[in-house]
Amino acid sequence: MSGGALEGIRIIDLSSVVVGPLATQILADHGADVIKVEGPGGDIGRYLAGKGRNDGMSPKYLHLNRNKRSVCLDLKTTQGHRVLMRLLETADVLLWNVRPASMERLGLGYDAIRRVKPDIIYCGMFGFGQAGRYRDMPAYDSIIQGVSGVADLNRRVLGAPAYVPFVLADRTVGLIGAHLITMALLHRMKTGEGQRIEVPMYENMVTQVMTEHMYLSTFDPPLGGTGDPRVLDPGNRPIPTLDGYICISANTDTQAHALFDAMERPELKTDPRFTTVAARFRNVREYFRLRREAMAMRTTQEWMEIFRRRDIPAAPCNTLESLMSDPHLNDVGLFQKREHPTEGAIMDIAPANTMSAGMRKDWIPAPRLGQDTANVLEEIGYTKEEIAKMAAGGSVRVAGDAARRAFNSDRTRRHE
Amino acid sequence: MSGGALEGIRIIDLSSVVVGPLATQILADHGADVIKVEGPGGDIGRYLAGKGRNDGMSPKYLHLNRNKRSVCLDLKTTQGHRVLMRLLETADVLLWNVRPASMERLGLGYDAIRRVKPDIIYCGMFGFGQAGRYRDMPAYDSIIQGVSGVADLNRRVLGAPAYVPFVLADRTVGLIGAHLITMALLHRMKTGEGQRIEVPMYENMVTQVMTEHMYLSTFDPPLGGTGDPRVLDPGNRPIPTLDGYICISANTDTQAHALFDAMERPELKTDPRFTTVAARFRNVREYFRLRREAMAMRTTQEWMEIFRRRDIPAAPCNTLESLMSDPHLNDVGLFQKREHPTEGAIMDIAPANTMSAGMRKDWIPAPRLGQDTANVLEEIGYTKEEIAKMAAGGSVRVAGDAARRAFNSDRTRRHE
Repeated sequence: MSGGALEGIRIIDLSSVVVGPLATQILADHGADVIKVEGPGGDIGRYLAGKGRNDGMSPKYLHLNRNKRSVCLDLKTTQGHRVLMRLLETADVLLWNVRPASMERLGLGYDAIRRVKPDIIYCGMFGFGQAGRYRDMPAYDSIIQGVSGVADLNRRVLGAPAYVPFVLADRTVGLIGAHLITMALLHRMKTGEGQRIEVPMYENMVTQVMTEHMYLSTFDPPLGGTGDPRVLDPGNRPIPTLDGYICISANTDTQAHALFDAMERPELKTDPRFTTVAARFRNVREYFRLRREAMAMRTTQEWMEIFRRRDIPAAPCNTLESLMSDPHLNDVGLFQKREHPTEGAIMDIAPANTMSAGMRKDWIPAPRLGQDTANVLEEIGYTKEEIAKMAAGGSVRVAGDAARRAFNSDRTRRHE
Repeated sequence: MSGGALEGIRIIDLSSVVVGPLATQILADHGADVIKVEGPGGDIGRYLAGKGRNDGMSPKYLHLNRNKRSVCLDLKTTQGHRVLMRLLETADVLLWNVRPASMERLGLGYDAIRRVKPDIIYCGMFGFGQAGRYRDMPAYDSIIQGVSGVADLNRRVLGAPAYVPFVLADRTVGLIGAHLITMALLHRMKTGEGQRIEVPMYENMVTQVMTEHMYLSTFDPPLGGTGDPRVLDPGNRPIPTLDGYICISANTDTQAHALFDAMERPELKTDPRFTTVAARFRNVREYFRLRREAMAMRTTQEWMEIFRRRDIPAAPCNTLESLMSDPHLNDVGLFQKREHPTEGAIMDIAPANTMSAGMRKDWIPAPRLGQDTANVLEEIGYTKEEIAKMAAGGSVRVAGDAARRAFNSDRTRRHE
């Protein structure tokens, strides 16, 4: 048995790229049996973002698909569809992240699935809520960052709109999917009842942006405009030191006054512009300017020693390279060197959180396309002969190699 | 009863500002009875980010604390501590977001709580994993953005490190806390066993950054450097049109070829630099340059009509103001005008997701400091006389007004 809160839960995962795979990776890390069902072309995330040692095994794919099994089915064939339905009879959750209309076209709407598995938890992650006029618009991370106001926040700070340089919308909504599915499992455990979950990326990202930045427009009539000026101030950024950058967050009076002492400007503690939270908020530009002037006088390391003694919240600005050898991350073992059966030694990222009652105990390397088709189909009652016949007909693919050959012809077709 | 998957679950919430309150707001939206236990100064989030109609009721606080009740206790007094312990006997979850050493100092370590409530789910959200050398470092959102590599990603795109202009680390870790607590509730329902959960912000944010950007350094020995060049390319940003900005995400061959047709550059479809995903990835700068040139020729609206016909994923770049009147958000009712009993009419942000089995049915406006102290204490068996006596002694505060008066003297003390 796997261990973890979701031990014994089976999830059929039709999702691809980041948003769905992130959600199911979390569920898998807590012990769920995640069966990644891929079309003949495979999850396009296998090919995005850099080539690894083998085609279809990109680094991003490796990081988002551990602890899952891969079953390769052509859902556009009658037989492939039938196999999926039999798999769903044994499942607790179905997750997908295409447009709802595509699921209906494939005969995989909620009602069709409920007929074979009445208590299924049916979770769709897609761009826009189905009750609104953008319901059919396609969505990708950068589209959602732009339409949800994330890029506009950057415009306020930088002068022109810009994306956050990782797939923020996919990641945020993937995390949200993890709690929604777990909530539904809890509900089912109490009541026996499954349900449909709809997770629109747009509405979720607007929520993240606006809970923070609706600001004085929260009131009706508005007491002022949108946008928290402290967060959006161009001066709110890592501060150059003699040899790098430092991050400081001195919010309370105690911290700010300690910072003034550290800067050797004790008179600022009683300066009415800076003595209280409210005063510093009103004079945030001048406050940031004074900090910047001071920080330029010493190295990051010198400041960190001074700040540590005075318990002023601060940290050096790490680069991706310095993270790879960060001593604290080494202490906690966040990066784990593991041997992948086909991809060689890789740096896996271990679960960041600790649950004293335990999480999944084994580690399953990210699967090659279709590597588990034969095993999983035998588990649900197909004979070796039936599987071989379906593989010959093209409705299922039993190994990585055949599927990989099919990649070039199928890849564009499946992401329409 | 509240309705929702967590109906009947009681959460004692000692957390403040964003990370913990975001997690408990989600749990509350699913029906949990969240009791926000605040010190005499109140959650500092009540005062950050702009003044609302009344002191201590800032817009950000209003958006993160609906569906909760507020109990005001001075945990530094013996009596206040005793009241919390009695409250915990009736609770399922305790959530906090200070440094672990502060919890121990307050006599609120895991072992102390387990003595009164053996199956408690004890969840701490803090800066750095307790098995590593940064364990005692203070943490705030911008500190974590800097140390976890988020600011460095911006450096690669923009030339100098910058924070993402919302409290990304708090929000990400708050969402993660929601699924971890729900997992633990599921585990307890199966086994009767509580547990301790540790959620370090640093390790979680490094995970978000590095699953995406460890890139070719995932392999050992590395096949190349860190950083997904497609995401980090300075050309990967909203594109200026004649009258604004547009976001395009044409990833598959079908989409990219449709884009070339829309740009009236059909010859690019067979140009070996752009014909496949892999080719466009290799020539990403030139691909982005050609897109930029074309987009400058028409208005956003003109392009959106062309793209809609060809099913090319694209969206206009919304501003925070245009979001407030977005017709799709109006269709789905994301922004709900509600009457707050003391703050007047406010724009609440409704839950973005749909669970067909239901979520919380009632709406409780974000509470004033200590407004529920008397009710909650009576619920757990204190008499009116006992409560009045404790209030007179200062260990509990029974109303918003008394607490608000205490704010100026207590505010710096409690955030040490």
